[in-house]
Amino acid sequence: MKKNKYIGVDLGGTKILTAAADNKGEIISEIKVPTESKLGMEKIKKNIFESVYTVMEKGNLHKDEIRAIGVGSPGPLDTEKGIILNSANLPIKNMPIIDLLENEFNISARLENDANTAALGENVFGAGKEAKNLLYITISTGIGGGIIINNDIYYGISGNAGEIGHMIINPNGPKCGCGNNGCLEAFSSGTAIKNMAENELKNNSKSMINEFIKKSDEISAEIVAKAAKKGDKLALDIFSKAAYYLGIGLANLVNIFNPEMIILGGGVMKAKELFLPQAKEVFKEKALKAPAELVKIREAALGDQIGVKGAIAVAMQKVEG
Amino acid sequence: MKKNKYIGVDLGGTKILTAAADNKGEIISEIKVPTESKLGMEKIKKNIFESVYTVMEKGNLHKDEIRAIGVGSPGPLDTEKGIILNSANLPIKNMPIIDLLENEFNISARLENDANTAALGENVFGAGKEAKNLLYITISTGIGGGIIINNDIYYGISGNAGEIGHMIINPNGPKCGCGNNGCLEAFSSGTAIKNMAENELKNNSKSMINEFIKKSDEISAEIVAKAAKKGDKLALDIFSKAAYYLGIGLANLVNIFNPEMIILGGGVMKAKELFLPQAKEVFKEKALKAPAELVKIREAALGDQIGVKGAIAVAMQKVEG
Repeated sequence: MKKNKYIGVDLGGTKILTAAADNKGEIISEIKVPTESKLGMEKIKKNIFESVYTVMEKGNLHKDEIRAIGVGSPGPLDTEKGIILNSANLPIKNMPIIDLLENEFNISARLENDANTAALGENVFGAGKEAKNLLYITISTGIGGGIIINNDIYYGISGNAGEIGHMIINPNGPKCGCGNNGCLEAFSSGTAIKNMAENELKNNSKSMINEFIKKSDEISAEIVAKAAKKGDKLALDIFSKAAYYLGIGLANLVNIFNPEMIILGGGVMKAKELFLPQAKEVFKEKALKAPAELVKIREAALGDQIGVKGAIAVAMQKVEG
Repeated sequence: MKKNKYIGVDLGGTKILTAAADNKGEIISEIKVPTESKLGMEKIKKNIFESVYTVMEKGNLHKDEIRAIGVGSPGPLDTEKGIILNSANLPIKNMPIIDLLENEFNISARLENDANTAALGENVFGAGKEAKNLLYITISTGIGGGIIINNDIYYGISGNAGEIGHMIINPNGPKCGCGNNGCLEAFSSGTAIKNMAENELKNNSKSMINEFIKKSDEISAEIVAKAAKKGDKLALDIFSKAAYYLGIGLANLVNIFNPEMIILGGGVMKAKELFLPQAKEVFKEKALKAPAELVKIREAALGDQIGVKGAIAVAMQKVEG
C-alpha cells in the first residue's frame, strides 16, 4: 500500500475543516464540522479525530496510505512540541494535539499557526505557486503575516516571526489590542474599521451605519463596508484611512524584504474594492522604486480552503523536512 | 602552495582599507590609503589594485595563495554581475570591479554592499559569532541594515532587502532623503540629528550648539552630541527624540523577524550613551514580549575594521557558496 496521501486539519474558532489529498494536493474527500468550542477541549479533540476518520472513510483511504497529517491552528503554539498553548478563540490550554493525533492514528503529524499555514498553502497551491520568497498578509479581525523564504516558512528564533500587524506606523495613532498605539492592525484590520466607526459615530450621527445597526446587533467591519458601498461618506473615509496605512505597511515590508510577491487574504479582503486600489497607490508612492517595481501584489487564491489546503501543505512539508 | 588566504577590500568615500587574512580571518597584513575619489574612477581602480598588491607584498604572500577577494562598497550595486552602479559617495558609474580584479589578479572575487558586508563581518568575526539569524543596523549618515538568515545574507528578490532606514514609523514626521516623511532614517540617523538641530535653532538660539558652530563650519551630529554631553537641553531633547523612534524601529523589526540578535553599528553609535539606554527602554515597552525577551541587542564589535573584516568574510563565503 503506497503511503502517498495527506490529511490537513484547519482548526478554527467556529469550524473544523478537514480534507484528505493526494500527493499533488488534489482533494479526495473533505468534511466541515462545528468546532463546538463551548463544549471544551475534550470535545474539540473528539471532533478533530472524527473528522480525520470521516475523510479517510469518505475517500476510501486506509490509515497506512496516509503519510502525514498537518494541523493549522490559531496561536500561540509551541510548534516544535506540537502543543496549542492558550488560544484566544478556543477554550484550549496546552493541548498536545500532535501527540494526540500520532497516538490515535500512528501517522506523523505537524502543527503550524494559521498565518504560516495560509502562507504555505498559497505558496504551494495558490497565488504564490511560482514564487520562492513571499509575504502572506491576512487582513481579518487582526492583521497577521506569514513569511516564506526559499519556499519554507521563516520562523525566527522562537517561532514568532511575522507579527507584521504590530508594526507601529504612527505612534500617535489609535490604541491597538497589543497595548501600543498606531500598529498597522490598529489602522487597517476589521477591528480597526469597527472601532473607527464607533468613535466617529459618537461625534457624528450622520451616517447610514446607524440605520444598518438598528437592523443588526452592533457595528462590524461588514456593516461599515455595506454603508461605504452605498456611498456613505463617513464609512468611505474610514476605509480610506485604513487603505492609507495599509499602503504604508506594504511599503515598509517591501523596503525591508524586497519580496518577490505579497499575497493579501483574510475576511476584510471581501471588501477589497473599498481600500485595495488606494492602498496600492500609497504603496507605489512610498516604497523604494527598485523593490516596488518588482514585487507582485496578489490576492489570495484559495478562498475558504486556504486553511485546509495550507494544512495539507504543512503535512507535505513535514515529510520533506 | 596552499590556496588558503583571503583579501578583503573596504571601499569607502574617503579611504580604502585592504587586508589579507588567513583562513581563520586573522589579519596578516593591511593598508589604508585615501580613495582619492576626486581624481576619478581610473584612479580609484589604481588605488584598489595597488592596495591588493601591497598587502600581498607586506604579508609575503604569493598570488597563488589567495583563494578569493571580497569587496565591500557603497551601493547601489549589481552584486551578481559585480558592478558598482552609481554610488552617491564615489564618482563611479558602472565600474565592473569584479571583472577588473579577476582579470588583474586571476583570483575569484565577490562584491557586496557595505551594510551586508558589515552584517556578515559581525556574524563571522564579531558580536554575532554565536548567532545564526541576526539583523545588523548601521546608524550613520543614513540608517541601513543587513539581514542574516542561517548565517547567510538575505538579499530579497533583487538584492535590495534590508532597507530598514526607510521604514515609515510616523508619516507626519520630518522629510527623509528618500522623499517620504517619517522614515526611521529621518528620525534617528546622523543626518536627522543634524537637521533637527538646524530646525530647532531657527526658532530657539538658546543652545551651546551655537557656540560650537562658531568654532567649526556647520552643525553636525557630532556637535549636537558634544553639546548634549555638556547637558545642553536642546541637544538632549534631539537625542531623546532620535532614541524614541529608534526604539520603535527596533520593536517593529523584532516583531517582524523574531531575530536571535540585533547588532548596532555606525558612526552615531560613538554617542551611544545619549540614546541607546532610552531606545532600549522604548523597545522593551513596545515590542511583543516573547520575541523581545529572547533577542540580544549588541553593539558592533569590529570597530573601524568592520568593513575590511566583512570583506574578508565575503571572500570566504564566495568560496563556500
